Amino acid sequence: IQTKLPKVGTTIFTVMSQLALEHKAVNLGQGFPDFDGPQALRDALAAAMNAGRNQYAPMTGVPALREQIARKTERLYGRKVNPDTEVTVTSGATEALFAAIAAVVRAGDEVIVLDPCYDSYEPAIELNGGRAVHVPLDPRDFSPDWQRIKDAITPKTRMILINTPHNPCGSVFSAADLDRLAELVRGSDILVLSDEVYEHIVFDEAPHQSVLRHAELAERSFVVSSFGKTYHTTGWKVGYCVAPRALSAEFRKVHQYLTFCTFTPAQVAFAEILEKDPQHYLDLPAFYQAKRDRFRELLAGTKFRLLPVAGAYFQVVDYSALSDRDDLAFCEWLIKEAGVAAIPISAFYETPPAEQRLIRFCFAKNDATLEQAAERLTAL
Amino acid sequence: IQTKLPKVGTTIFTVMSQLALEHKAVNLGQGFPDFDGPQALRDALAAAMNAGRNQYAPMTGVPALREQIARKTERLYGRKVNPDTEVTVTSGATEALFAAIAAVVRAGDEVIVLDPCYDSYEPAIELNGGRAVHVPLDPRDFSPDWQRIKDAITPKTRMILINTPHNPCGSVFSAADLDRLAELVRGSDILVLSDEVYEHIVFDEAPHQSVLRHAELAERSFVVSSFGKTYHTTGWKVGYCVAPRALSAEFRKVHQYLTFCTFTPAQVAFAEILEKDPQHYLDLPAFYQAKRDRFRELLAGTKFRLLPVAGAYFQVVDYSALSDRDDLAFCEWLIKEAGVAAIPISAFYETPPAEQRLIRFCFAKNDATLEQAAERLTAL
Ligand SMILES: CSCCC(=O)C(=O)O
Ligand SMILES: CSCCC(=O)C(=O)O
Repeated sequence: IQTKLPKVGTTIFTVMSQLALEHKAVNLGQGFPDFDGPQALRDALAAAMNAGRNQYAPMTGVPALREQIARKTERLYGRKVNPDTEVTVTSGATEALFAAIAAVVRAGDEVIVLDPCYDSYEPAIELNGGRAVHVPLDPRDFSPDWQRIKDAITPKTRMILINTPHNPCGSVFSAADLDRLAELVRGSDILVLSDEVYEHIVFDEAPHQSVLRHAELAERSFVVSSFGKTYHTTGWKVGYCVAPRALSAEFRKVHQYLTFCTFTPAQVAFAEILEKDPQHYLDLPAFYQAKRDRFRELLAGTKFRLLPVAGAYFQVVDYSALSDRDDLAFCEWLIKEAGVAAIPISAFYETPPAEQRLIRFCFAKNDATLEQAAERLTAL
Repeated sequence: IQTKLPKVGTTIFTVMSQLALEHKAVNLGQGFPDFDGPQALRDALAAAMNAGRNQYAPMTGVPALREQIARKTERLYGRKVNPDTEVTVTSGATEALFAAIAAVVRAGDEVIVLDPCYDSYEPAIELNGGRAVHVPLDPRDFSPDWQRIKDAITPKTRMILINTPHNPCGSVFSAADLDRLAELVRGSDILVLSDEVYEHIVFDEAPHQSVLRHAELAERSFVVSSFGKTYHTTGWKVGYCVAPRALSAEFRKVHQYLTFCTFTPAQVAFAEILEKDPQHYLDLPAFYQAKRDRFRELLAGTKFRLLPVAGAYFQVVDYSALSDRDDLAFCEWLIKEAGVAAIPISAFYETPPAEQRLIRFCFAKNDATLEQAAERLTAL
C-alpha cells in the first residue's frame, strides 16, 4: 500500500516513551504527571458509573459539564458563552484541534503555525487538504514574531493556530500579543485556533492571556482546552472547544462523525468537581511553580543551560555544553546512557535551526522522580 | 461563515433523542440499552482508576486489551492477529471508521457504501475528499446486491464499506456474501472497511460472518468493532480496528492525531472482563434474541408490519397501514402523538425509495420499557 502520509512517522511521544520503557529510564519525555488527581474526582466518576450514567452522552457533551465550562469562562476570562451553542465536549484536546481544522480548512487553504509547534497540527491540516505555513517563534524567547506572521499571510490563509502557554517551550502570550493578532486579522476572514490546554498553568502571578479575554478575537476563534492537564488525568481524554455559535455549529458537524461523544462518567465527574472545587485550578499555578522552581534548582549543578519557563510543565534546556549530537540523537543517548528520557525540540519544527541544541523535560512529576532524574543528569 | 459541509445537519440520533426528551417519549430511537453492563466491569474500571492508571494509554491501546482482542479474534474467527501491529484501540467505533477512511481515501477516490447505511460514513468520506457511491441493498431483504455493487466499481474505487450485522436493517451477511465480495475485489487494490460493531448480536444460531473469517478478504480489510454494544456501555466509547500490519500502520498515523489514545481505565477494565468472563459475549445472542422475540410478540397486535431481524438490536417496521406521511414526519408525529421515539430509515439513504414507509425501533430495552412502548403503539 502506497502511503497517503509519507511524512508522518510515529509521534515522538510514543517513540520516546517506548524507548524509556525499554531502558527503564526516568521518563521526563511525554508530558504526563506521575501522580493522581483528586480522589473526589475518581469517586464522582465511580458514582456516575454506578448510577447508570453509562450510555451515550449528548453529542455536544453532558449539559452540566458545558454549563460549568461556561461559568469558568465567564469567571476567569470575563466572557459569557452559551453552553448550548458555544461549548462542545470532545475526546481530548487532540480531537478538538482536529475537528476545528476539519470544520473550516479546505483543499488549498493555508494555516499558519508557529514553530516549534505541537506535532498533531500539521498532519491534521494536511489530512484536510490544507497546507501548514510554518513561521518560527523568535528564537531568543519563543515569543511570536508578528512581523513575520504578517508577512506569511496570503489570500489563501484560512487560519492562524496559536498555543499559549506554549508546548514545548513554556512561553506565554502577552495581552499585547493578542492585540497584535487582532490587528493582523481585522477585516479578513482569517480564523484563529487557540490551543490553551495549559491555561491553568501560568507562573509568576501572570494571568493567562486567553483569546477568550479578547472580545474581538474571540468572535473568530476556536479555543481548545482539556481537563487532562488541570486534573492530572491525561488518560481521561476529556477536552472541549469554545467558539461562537456559527463556528461551533460547523465544529459539531465534524465532531459528531469523528467520535460522536465522550466517555459519559468522566464528563459527569468533571462537572461535579468544577462545581464543588473550583479552588483546584486556582491553586494549580502555585503547585506547578513549586515543581518548576525545585526542578530548576536541582538542575543548577548540571551542564544544561535552563531556558525560562513562564507556563505549562516543561523545562527546555540547552545541552550544547554536553554534546554536539543533534537533539534526537542526544535524547536517544540520554535514555540509554543516563537513564533519563526527554523530548527533542527539533521534532516540533518543519526546519529545525541547525545550531539549536534544545531538549524538553517534563517536570509534572513527584519530587522523588525529579530528584532521581537530576542525580543522573548531574553525573553527566 | 460559509459552511464546508452544506449537506450535513445534526445527526438524526441527536435530533430524535432531543425530541424524545422534550416530549417525554419512550425512546426507542437512538440505539442504546436502558440497562447496565456487568457490575464486575464497573468495579474493574474503578479499581484501575484507584490504582493510578489515569495517564495516557499507549497510542495503540493498553497492551492487555490488544492481547485480549487478538485472542477473541482467534477464538471466534480462527484468525491469528498480532496485537502489537494489527490491533489498535480507538475512541469508539466512530473514530475507527473515520481513521480508516482518512488513512487511505484521497481526493477524488470513490468509496462504495450500501444504502441504507450508517450516517457517519458519507461525511467521513467527504471530509477526506472522497465521494460516497451509494448502492442500495436489495429492498426485499436488505441483502447486498452483488451485481449492482460490481457495476458500481470504477478505476477510482478505493474502498467498499460493509456493515454486518446491519444497522439499521438487522440483516446479516452470509458466508457466500463474503465470497462474492472477495471475488469482486480480487486482483484490484480496492480495500474493505467492515463495520462489525454488532458482531456479538447475531440470532437463530447463525455464526457472525466476520470478514476476519475470510483469509483472502482479511488481507485487505479494516475490521471495526466496539465494546459499547457488547457490554451495554455505549457511553464508554472504546472501539478498535483490526487490520493487517501495513493497513494498521497507516491507520495509526491518523489515529495518533485524531484522539491519540482512549480513556485508560476503561481499556484496563475491558481487558480484565474479556479475560475473566468471555461467556458474557457468548451469551449475548440469546439475551438479545429473547428481547427481539418479546418485542415482536408485543407488536403483533399493532398495525405495523414487522421485517425480519437476523442481528443487531433494531426492529424495522413498515407503517404504511397507519399513515402515508414520509418517515421523518411520521417519526415526529409518533413522538408527539404516541409518545414513542423511533428513527426514520430514509435518514440512512442518499435517495430514499419514494414508496418506502419504514422506521426503526431499538429493542435494547428493559421489558417494562418495551411493554410501555408497545401499549402506546397498539393504541394507534
Ligand atoms: C498525546 S502524548 C503527548 C503529551 C504531550 O502533550 C506532550 O508531551 O507534549
Ligand atoms: C452514535 S448515536 C447512534 C447510535 C447508533 O448506533 C444507532 O442508533 O444507530
